[in-house]
Amino acid sequence: MRILGVDPGLRTTGWGVVEVSERDLLIIEAGVLRSRSVDPLSIRLKFIHDGLAEVILRLRPDRVAVESIFHARNSRSSLLLGHVRGVILLAASMASLPVMAYSPREVKKAVTGFGAAEKRQVQEMVRILLCLETLPRPADKADALAVAICHANCLRGPRIPGRRVR
Amino acid sequence: MRILGVDPGLRTTGWGVVEVSERDLLIIEAGVLRSRSVDPLSIRLKFIHDGLAEVILRLRPDRVAVESIFHARNSRSSLLLGHVRGVILLAASMASLPVMAYSPREVKKAVTGFGAAEKRQVQEMVRILLCLETLPRPADKADALAVAICHANCLRGPRIPGRRVR
Repeated sequence: MRILGVDPGLRTTGWGVVEVSERDLLIIEAGVLRSRSVDPLSIRLKFIHDGLAEVILRLRPDRVAVESIFHARNSRSSLLLGHVRGVILLAASMASLPVMAYSPREVKKAVTGFGAAEKRQVQEMVRILLCLETLPRPADKADALAVAICHANCLRGPRIPGRRVR
Repeated sequence: MRILGVDPGLRTTGWGVVEVSERDLLIIEAGVLRSRSVDPLSIRLKFIHDGLAEVILRLRPDRVAVESIFHARNSRSSLLLGHVRGVILLAASMASLPVMAYSPREVKKAVTGFGAAEKRQVQEMVRILLCLETLPRPADKADALAVAICHANCLRGPRIPGRRVR
């Protein structure tokens, strides 16, 4: 089972693909998509969508796991993040992939055992769980891998029930 | 100049295409896209995106005008509307169309002369301006035509400056 984890962001969207089996958890590839702030919103959304669509076509994940973002501080940032998440879900839907959503708290708990873990702790645990030599950077890439690991954990032992995105 | 106006909504997205010249304002076609609430969010977004893409391909607008939705009551509904708006902007971007945004207040003022007009007044003025025999229904269709008319007014005499969506 191959999982694409995504951490949505207008400026930087992180993505990471892991392969999970009964015994192993392997990183396939991870990266970030950085949209140019000088471009109109519609162009930035197309950049993010096309980038994800290319990753899906090339790495052929079976599922997509994405951070839920109900914690946005205010209505405007929530709205903008919603735009980004919309085109990410669309990229999954266009490839007929199911999408699961986890809150940042669930992701942190799945990866570090602690729902209020700090970014650095998440990066360190992602490094250990995926046997990486160095910390995954930037943090958006680590967060995307963390959400993929969270879904992988859920598949192997459903302690953290993911929600089908509705 | 042909303008596609869109009123974003997860349940019902209204759309309307008008043709504007120096002297005339003509309706080409208008409709609504109703997504099924039993479907996962990603499927609903694909339905809305594909519907708009089909309209763009068939009716060949030169520009897209869309309601800005910063007035959403709470963070969650703002987030969901953001998803829908994201895939609408993407459909425009995929067709290389520029997108202009107007607040609901600007749209009402452009169509009725009064920024706090009621839905019924907007419908009635859209009916009159486009020489329709009956009220455009549902309201989502009228709202989409209103935003297209708002942009048409702006093109003919820039009293209401539309903003390039950023």
